[in-house]
Amino acid sequence: MLPLNPAIAATFRPPVMEARRWLEGVTFTPERPLINVSQAAPVDPPPEPLRRAMSEAALNQPDAHFYGPVLGRSELREAVATDWSRAYGGVIRPEQVAITQGCNQAFCATIQTLAGPGDEIILPLPWYFNHKMWLDMQGIRSVGLHCGQGMIPDAAEAAKLITDRTRAIVLVSPNNPSGAEYPAETLRAFFDLARSRNLALIVDETYRDFDSRSGAPHHLFADPDWGDTLIHLYSFSKAYRLTGHRIGAVVASEARMIEIEKFLDTVAICASQIGQIGAAWGMANLTEWLAGERAEILARRAAMDAGMASLEGWKVKGCGAYFAWVEHPFDLPSPELAKRLVREAGVLLLPGTMFMPEGDADGARHVRIAFANADVAGIGTLMRRLAGFRG
Amino acid sequence: MLPLNPAIAATFRPPVMEARRWLEGVTFTPERPLINVSQAAPVDPPPEPLRRAMSEAALNQPDAHFYGPVLGRSELREAVATDWSRAYGGVIRPEQVAITQGCNQAFCATIQTLAGPGDEIILPLPWYFNHKMWLDMQGIRSVGLHCGQGMIPDAAEAAKLITDRTRAIVLVSPNNPSGAEYPAETLRAFFDLARSRNLALIVDETYRDFDSRSGAPHHLFADPDWGDTLIHLYSFSKAYRLTGHRIGAVVASEARMIEIEKFLDTVAICASQIGQIGAAWGMANLTEWLAGERAEILARRAAMDAGMASLEGWKVKGCGAYFAWVEHPFDLPSPELAKRLVREAGVLLLPGTMFMPEGDADGARHVRIAFANADVAGIGTLMRRLAGFRG
Repeated sequence: MLPLNPAIAATFRPPVMEARRWLEGVTFTPERPLINVSQAAPVDPPPEPLRRAMSEAALNQPDAHFYGPVLGRSELREAVATDWSRAYGGVIRPEQVAITQGCNQAFCATIQTLAGPGDEIILPLPWYFNHKMWLDMQGIRSVGLHCGQGMIPDAAEAAKLITDRTRAIVLVSPNNPSGAEYPAETLRAFFDLARSRNLALIVDETYRDFDSRSGAPHHLFADPDWGDTLIHLYSFSKAYRLTGHRIGAVVASEARMIEIEKFLDTVAICASQIGQIGAAWGMANLTEWLAGERAEILARRAAMDAGMASLEGWKVKGCGAYFAWVEHPFDLPSPELAKRLVREAGVLLLPGTMFMPEGDADGARHVRIAFANADVAGIGTLMRRLAGFRG
Repeated sequence: MLPLNPAIAATFRPPVMEARRWLEGVTFTPERPLINVSQAAPVDPPPEPLRRAMSEAALNQPDAHFYGPVLGRSELREAVATDWSRAYGGVIRPEQVAITQGCNQAFCATIQTLAGPGDEIILPLPWYFNHKMWLDMQGIRSVGLHCGQGMIPDAAEAAKLITDRTRAIVLVSPNNPSGAEYPAETLRAFFDLARSRNLALIVDETYRDFDSRSGAPHHLFADPDWGDTLIHLYSFSKAYRLTGHRIGAVVASEARMIEIEKFLDTVAICASQIGQIGAAWGMANLTEWLAGERAEILARRAAMDAGMASLEGWKVKGCGAYFAWVEHPFDLPSPELAKRLVREAGVLLLPGTMFMPEGDADGARHVRIAFANADVAGIGTLMRRLAGFRG
């Protein structure tokens, strides 16, 4: 038998792939197709002009096929720096932006620079499972922080969890899986806490483009020394429908970039050039289109909220951007419920246990619904199917 | 000050990026352009039909933009399984193939499944620097194995380095940086050693397509239980000029794939779909073209060998596939030599110190030349410039 690293053996298997296995052997018909709300994955490809831009680069732009700089193509780093500076009312330089092979990798790179085995990272509960998996496989302890009303975490509660091994606090806003949009003052309180205790505050804003609020979601970048505390993560996957290209970003201090570059050089060398070309093209040309996407997702959110309110016994705990975190009314643990919903309702969603520590009762009572994958009519169908399920 | 993981702080910075910084402020003219033999990077984009296939997928194939399976697109996994089974005379199933975001990532994923902090991995010297960087940042000890005649490592010498913390031996053949093509019996001896000591034997065959020998370079896959010992790594970057797309592969047992999938899901989610489509297209359609590429690189190798033989004081220690590992005649440590060659000879190569432990005298005396980046005429020019350099 070959050696096996105990830390990876103790890491759970990818939840999305596990859920896909529940589909095996189940038949869906054109009249009653599967409603897949398990993963935040745009159902349609990028708009035609963006596909065309990438297509032309593949054919005619030689450097679309060559190695690029480890930290990303300069036009994309510059675009992020310019847009973010404007959107957040701060100063972000291109040298403070790194492009990664997707936002999961942005998280892994960030953690690698901050923490090692035996260190601790504070994660609000429910967490995003890939965050938890990376911490587990690196031998880093995840310290769970239960959220309060509206699925908003409390900095004062987080303060009680800090030890001399704590290295960072991770916030995801709008949240995956709860959909919660964290108020600016919450982010500020966490920033102040992190700064006062010499911790990093990692803010994953993968879903920022679908925030229902107008204006900057926080003002942390307005602090001229933001880089001493804040590390921001972003994904191009949702806004521009580029999931299959794996393009994400980290915004951090230049000093941190030296460490991030070591990780990215070793794990990635560079992110896909075609993907980066597409992301930069999207940022330059799809502002209006993206505003329409946001409006559509906000309409889906309204449909989700209204639909869930009409369902007996179900309780929406958080709903926003791509996701709703919902308490179900059945006397079934959520993994059993999820498997039965596949077979009996033709619905694939993820059980709350995938987002909570083992044994936490909240996991069994909740499910995550990636409602933004379905259009308003599809959300109506989803509601009828859930209403028809009797547990 | 934010926390800093001491393991990453102790990891050296990316050598290729460091070498690029030596170019800053140096002027090259059209009459005397830079000869860049620092990185194994095809100078031209993929052939037109392959670019066209990728371009068409970007425009018209929706799933080119969607998430794909964590372990890779089935057509590519199947193509690797079929081709490898034939090439190596063994049985490799598609379920034993994982597609990664480049071969560096294949290495990282493999190591993650095998070893944790405090464990040891045996690396022949000189090593490939990204292997060393990953082990350093993971807190894994690299145990260096000096090579003998012709830059071939000796399994009996490796046996003396095994401790109860050893988890794997890593071989790269054809080698980066030495160019050495390891004999089949060498690989067999390492396989037998690894099996007898319950270690993994990781064989990185990134440059397999440019091996000068015909037939299988080893027969390890012919062992029906190869998966109990062998983990094979491959890159599509060199053969099909797909460096900017980041597509690599791991071939390992199905049991190991469960662990590799956890890592890839967390760090990558999936490899670029366009890149995978291109790699599969290349495998299906470019066999003859690739044979021509190999012939061209073998011609460059012959030019390199002949050219170096004519240079006074330089000694080729290994030469094959993409690289030569060469002892220089100057009373200068190789990093100083490399920087002076940029300014005085218009040549960028990497000093041996980047491939050796700190303080090892071999590092200062050697350089790596990625000669396959230059054509035969370019290699001639390289030789004249090196001949003109007086130290």
